[in-house]
Amino acid sequence: MNGPALSHDRDCLAAEEPLEIRVEGHSVAVVMRTPGEDDELAAGFAVTEGLVRTARDVLEIRHQPHCLASSRDGSAPPAPSDQAARDGSARRGAARRSDGNLINVRLRRPETLDLKRLTRHVFSSSSCGICSKASIEAVRQPFPPIEDEFAFDTDVLLGLPTALASAQETFKRTGGLHACALFDVAGRLAVVREDVGRHNALDKVVGWALLRDRLPLRRHILLLSGRASFEMMQKALAAGIPVVAAISAPSSLAVEFASESGQTLVGFLRGQRMNIYAGANRLGTR
Amino acid sequence: MNGPALSHDRDCLAAEEPLEIRVEGHSVAVVMRTPGEDDELAAGFAVTEGLVRTARDVLEIRHQPHCLASSRDGSAPPAPSDQAARDGSARRGAARRSDGNLINVRLRRPETLDLKRLTRHVFSSSSCGICSKASIEAVRQPFPPIEDEFAFDTDVLLGLPTALASAQETFKRTGGLHACALFDVAGRLAVVREDVGRHNALDKVVGWALLRDRLPLRRHILLLSGRASFEMMQKALAAGIPVVAAISAPSSLAVEFASESGQTLVGFLRGQRMNIYAGANRLGTR
Repeated sequence: MNGPALSHDRDCLAAEEPLEIRVEGHSVAVVMRTPGEDDELAAGFAVTEGLVRTARDVLEIRHQPHCLASSRDGSAPPAPSDQAARDGSARRGAARRSDGNLINVRLRRPETLDLKRLTRHVFSSSSCGICSKASIEAVRQPFPPIEDEFAFDTDVLLGLPTALASAQETFKRTGGLHACALFDVAGRLAVVREDVGRHNALDKVVGWALLRDRLPLRRHILLLSGRASFEMMQKALAAGIPVVAAISAPSSLAVEFASESGQTLVGFLRGQRMNIYAGANRLGTR
Repeated sequence: MNGPALSHDRDCLAAEEPLEIRVEGHSVAVVMRTPGEDDELAAGFAVTEGLVRTARDVLEIRHQPHCLASSRDGSAPPAPSDQAARDGSARRGAARRSDGNLINVRLRRPETLDLKRLTRHVFSSSSCGICSKASIEAVRQPFPPIEDEFAFDTDVLLGLPTALASAQETFKRTGGLHACALFDVAGRLAVVREDVGRHNALDKVVGWALLRDRLPLRRHILLLSGRASFEMMQKALAAGIPVVAAISAPSSLAVEFASESGQTLVGFLRGQRMNIYAGANRLGTR
């Protein structure tokens, strides 16, 4: 050791726990999410997976008890190491083993649940939200393109990052969360949601809108704290959001998807600059 | 409009395309990835899903032709909007519709493929890599804890971000990629991989090691360009990596998992500072 200055301190960490989402009792996903607004997350997941469209499709969303002991199938977690014990930092059996990590969505018309849609999915481990479809062709959901014609001022967009930063309380403490924020076309903040997973943050925003019967979200702008991927654009399309702005870069497929879907896509929205990748007409520019 | 200065220009985008991964012909995942090193991605995926452990378990990894027309099941992508046509920016049917987006892993002993392991998964859409397990209990794979006792200098860790930045060529152009880099305990770079998905970047690093018969990766350090989640720690454990350092924050479950698994976890590795969240013994500090 070269004598580094060491100090012991407490640190605030972004919470991450699994949530099992069920629809009409069918297990449809286990997502790693930041606890909180689980009903929004489940509702938004159902929308962006194409299982429901509006508040009228949903009867109830409720946490359910979940018996861990009976369903453990022999794949026990690794035993705590001696080191973990020595560190004193092991927090085994923490909050994730609550009974708040299972939530069920009941539909108003359960007979409309498209089980074939479910069987198109296969298991997957992936960095993205559209993993686990049964085939590559299935990565695109058949959501209708946006036909929401309006124009708004570029100054509105330029002001959004500051509005997000001031609303993003948890991030300031942990540095570990993604944020999605929804604004109207005048730049007024409707809602902001944070999560360890960016797809979860967006699903929570969409679920927030569903639970308030505000879908589809015409004439709204979605601000992403990070990058814009294909899946984020498709989730926005599922909610009818016409404009997506990202602080960081879009992917090639995000730009292609936005163009095909009639969405406006802005990237690198920083300071007094932005790049417009698709749908520049809504910004009154050519 | 308030007269913003507008210019048209070309931008370099991070490529994003779906890849269907099959094992012995069974479709096990569709991931959205940056094309390139697909064999490493498939190999690493197989390791971090617990399907194979070393190079000896793999017979062959090869791209396969994929017939799009015949397998399309009625869920056509949304038609290009008029707007997309006007923008002139629609790039329909781009490179993702190549035949390089399907890859198959053949096992040396196909009879060892645990199909029950597959059936524990359900379909999912999620921001994380351990989505889509059939139940919450299944988020933890039964990988053995690390028992790799050694110590190395904190100065080695402090030098890694600079080494990563100089190796991270694509990121400089697009700003849209996650990076994972593997170093030995003297701080020498072994490999760096970039991807639109951070789990893919890590799977590629693990697959790189498998294809060179270097698993398990004892006495190595993994550097993450972003945050450390539970799933990233579990993937590192699958490859036997004892030390994980992240430029950004860890999640609560990442810290808990590292402690239980005997891993060293460092976060906020920036400038001359770092936070040590687990396994401080390897840094010679208490």
